[in-house]
Amino acid sequence: MKNKRFALISTYNKENLKFICKTLNKYKIEIISTGSTAVEIKKNNIKCHLISDITRFKEILDGRVKTLHPKIYASILYKREEKKHLKTFNEINFPKIDFVIVNLYPFKSIITKNKDEAECLDMIDIGGPTLLRAGAKNYKSITTICDTKDYKKFAQNLYLNNGKTTLNFRKKMAQKSFSTTFDYDLSISNWFKNKKKIDKRIKLKYGENPNQKALFVPNHKEKSILEGKIQGKEIGYNNFLDAEAGLNCINEFIEPTCVIIKHNNPCGVASSSSINLAFEKALNSDSESSFGGIVVLNRSVNAKLAKEITKHFFEIIIANNFYTKALNELSFKKKLILIKYNTLFMKQKKELRSTIGGILIQKKNLLKVNKNDLNYIGNKKVGTKELNDIIFAAKVCKHVKSNAIVLVKNKKTIGIGAGQMSRSDATKLAILKIPKKLKSSKFVCASDAFFPFIDNIKRLKKSNCKSIVVPFGSINDEKIINYAKKVKIDLYLTKYRFFKH
Amino acid sequence: MKNKRFALISTYNKENLKFICKTLNKYKIEIISTGSTAVEIKKNNIKCHLISDITRFKEILDGRVKTLHPKIYASILYKREEKKHLKTFNEINFPKIDFVIVNLYPFKSIITKNKDEAECLDMIDIGGPTLLRAGAKNYKSITTICDTKDYKKFAQNLYLNNGKTTLNFRKKMAQKSFSTTFDYDLSISNWFKNKKKIDKRIKLKYGENPNQKALFVPNHKEKSILEGKIQGKEIGYNNFLDAEAGLNCINEFIEPTCVIIKHNNPCGVASSSSINLAFEKALNSDSESSFGGIVVLNRSVNAKLAKEITKHFFEIIIANNFYTKALNELSFKKKLILIKYNTLFMKQKKELRSTIGGILIQKKNLLKVNKNDLNYIGNKKVGTKELNDIIFAAKVCKHVKSNAIVLVKNKKTIGIGAGQMSRSDATKLAILKIPKKLKSSKFVCASDAFFPFIDNIKRLKKSNCKSIVVPFGSINDEKIINYAKKVKIDLYLTKYRFFKH
Repeated sequence: MKNKRFALISTYNKENLKFICKTLNKYKIEIISTGSTAVEIKKNNIKCHLISDITRFKEILDGRVKTLHPKIYASILYKREEKKHLKTFNEINFPKIDFVIVNLYPFKSIITKNKDEAECLDMIDIGGPTLLRAGAKNYKSITTICDTKDYKKFAQNLYLNNGKTTLNFRKKMAQKSFSTTFDYDLSISNWFKNKKKIDKRIKLKYGENPNQKALFVPNHKEKSILEGKIQGKEIGYNNFLDAEAGLNCINEFIEPTCVIIKHNNPCGVASSSSINLAFEKALNSDSESSFGGIVVLNRSVNAKLAKEITKHFFEIIIANNFYTKALNELSFKKKLILIKYNTLFMKQKKELRSTIGGILIQKKNLLKVNKNDLNYIGNKKVGTKELNDIIFAAKVCKHVKSNAIVLVKNKKTIGIGAGQMSRSDATKLAILKIPKKLKSSKFVCASDAFFPFIDNIKRLKKSNCKSIVVPFGSINDEKIINYAKKVKIDLYLTKYRFFKH
Repeated sequence: MKNKRFALISTYNKENLKFICKTLNKYKIEIISTGSTAVEIKKNNIKCHLISDITRFKEILDGRVKTLHPKIYASILYKREEKKHLKTFNEINFPKIDFVIVNLYPFKSIITKNKDEAECLDMIDIGGPTLLRAGAKNYKSITTICDTKDYKKFAQNLYLNNGKTTLNFRKKMAQKSFSTTFDYDLSISNWFKNKKKIDKRIKLKYGENPNQKALFVPNHKEKSILEGKIQGKEIGYNNFLDAEAGLNCINEFIEPTCVIIKHNNPCGVASSSSINLAFEKALNSDSESSFGGIVVLNRSVNAKLAKEITKHFFEIIIANNFYTKALNELSFKKKLILIKYNTLFMKQKKELRSTIGGILIQKKNLLKVNKNDLNYIGNKKVGTKELNDIIFAAKVCKHVKSNAIVLVKNKKTIGIGAGQMSRSDATKLAILKIPKKLKSSKFVCASDAFFPFIDNIKRLKKSNCKSIVVPFGSINDEKIINYAKKVKIDLYLTKYRFFKH
């Protein structure tokens, strides 16, 4: 026995078992096997030793204990190059196992078909992973094959190396064994957590465009808008992002506020004494863009507001709640998606996105706009109303794509210049968007980053802007401050830049 | 022995061992232990049985085989409620193990400190995970404790339930055991793959804004722009995204082309007979916005082009390569980042991003603009030049944020209306951006989605637009086609909408 080599084979998946046994025989590697694997091997007229004959300990407890024997593990684990180990191994007088060919009970596929807990527990393989792990640990000497798909590579490696395997091959297979056991135990851990759902990726109709397939993978520690949905058609990829943009924006406000989102940008935001008025104001800020938008409200929807909403075309309404009468009203618009707000929507503190070559992770921009961070540069006594508008504009501006310019009057956006490649264009655009009947009114302005030159201040002044909240940091800061003073436009300088892309 | 209960204790971390043993003794649970754990227990004058005395198989191979014994596993795994199992178990005459208290060799912390492979391999625990997995599998009867932090909870559970644990507690601990073994094997698998690097997340200076911390996690199967960098300051969060936007856009073009990106949007794109001309044309499309932008070129940079580049302020130049003389020229601008293009930049086929409650995954929009997909509606014979401009405009439009309108003349953008909440604003903006000296020239237009009304066609016609490439799908399609025919503006209808956010 001393100079013989043995392979321990114990497989659930019996595919190509004959092939692998024939291969081993070709190189005079003898086979030791267990229960059903041995039966299958013998069926093919291939000689094999029963593990229980060798250990003299028979399989017990319906196969729950087959291979967990110290002599087997001594044989797999002893260091071939260490004298002391060698001596111990010779003393126990046991076949030298150099090959471990094992595949596991298919726990993952069983749990998806089977709801019976006891049967699932039975499918948790104890002996198999231990054999794989032991073989892989001692990969310097042991070849561990955990996947029937690797039989061919294994045969080829034996063939090319006179019946031995290369260290490199054994190492690769060892890595695969540990990646198999980790994946196996991950499934079990998830199953215990009742987290089978984690594999249940939700297929979306499509991604940003119909030609792009898309999935949503829920994180079960949080809530997604899917869980808040109480009516309407299927939530799409773009809906997820628009809802997120709206929820992030509404979270800046405490008093009754309405945010209307279109293509990830707010197109109308307003606060008021009642949610009904806030909706009306937000809608009027840019009624054209609002068409097909997403409405986010930080109060509940009453019947009257519901009736107003039904007069327009929106894709989604998100609100703290919907009164029964409002629900009745809205139920006629069957496609309109209604989502009940949940504080768990706002649980994520990080943002993650793939980019070329990897993944970018950043802290969400949770910094609050605070009046104490504003450095007022002007001559008049600042009124509460102006300050409120300034704060309101800065809050909205944080959620508009850069370059962003937001014009505000009475806690209502009257011109949003979004997503521009130059700040001048953002400014021109915002001014262009002021509704006709407000063209001669005074307003305040927020900019998400500093003005590089005085041109925008000039433009804003000409359009009746009375004050601007803007980060400092330009090399032209001094020039800009002096110019603003000269034309009597007040500045509220902040150190916080708020880019958003 | 029959009515006694036993706990098998084998811990690497000996913290609070005395406490747990005292607790077990309180409820008359006897202790079975191994090597160093037993020594430590006895030091505290607590009685414990040596596992090797019970199995009559002594620890061998420097502790490599201690607990892998069939009788131990029979004791842990037999189903207490099954008569046949009970009978088998009684026959082997072995203590009844109801508690498994095990913690593992600290593989993860060892590998970070230790570079010696043999020593790391020694730290792969084989017996420990097997005990935990077996105990957890039979959690209906067995309590498995794998973390010293759970000792207190365990003691409390015993206290509250007269020396027994609740099923719920055992299940929680079972789940924790499997999550521990999965995590353990994941570390081993990564170590084998030499993937310690995966933990080497790259800290970025900050995220989108200075108040947001950010990381980049490289995917080692791909290349990131970091790996293409040959000069310049640290690559920031926004640089990653702008570079990606530019590279995605340039990939649409074969002839010499230059794309200039600002705030994730192209602000100038041009193709020409030489890369130098393409750069000049792209820059002139919107020289104001180009300031501080990212230039992407699909050819190598020669000395003359390098000289031109140094006359302006850009953050990054990405090109196929840089000739030595060009590098010399550019080296004076020390902060300017130079990146050599790598085809592995374009390997990702999926996009991933976190959103409220989970992660969105979508196929990248890799659909190519193809002239065969265009349905021409007009009366004249279409010239190559017009068709080329139409294709050029559609390609650029795919990479402009929605709503997007792109105006093109001679393979050069002359007006980009990006990121608007209404298509009218995108159109107005694009027209507004036409450079003064081109105000009376003819041009073509691309729209990323259908026109809802005729107003934009009217606007475009008035500004000398001769043809438009636009997706169909509006309920007003017929009206729009008829109107276009009437005002003699040609339409190239496509079925592909290209939203981008």
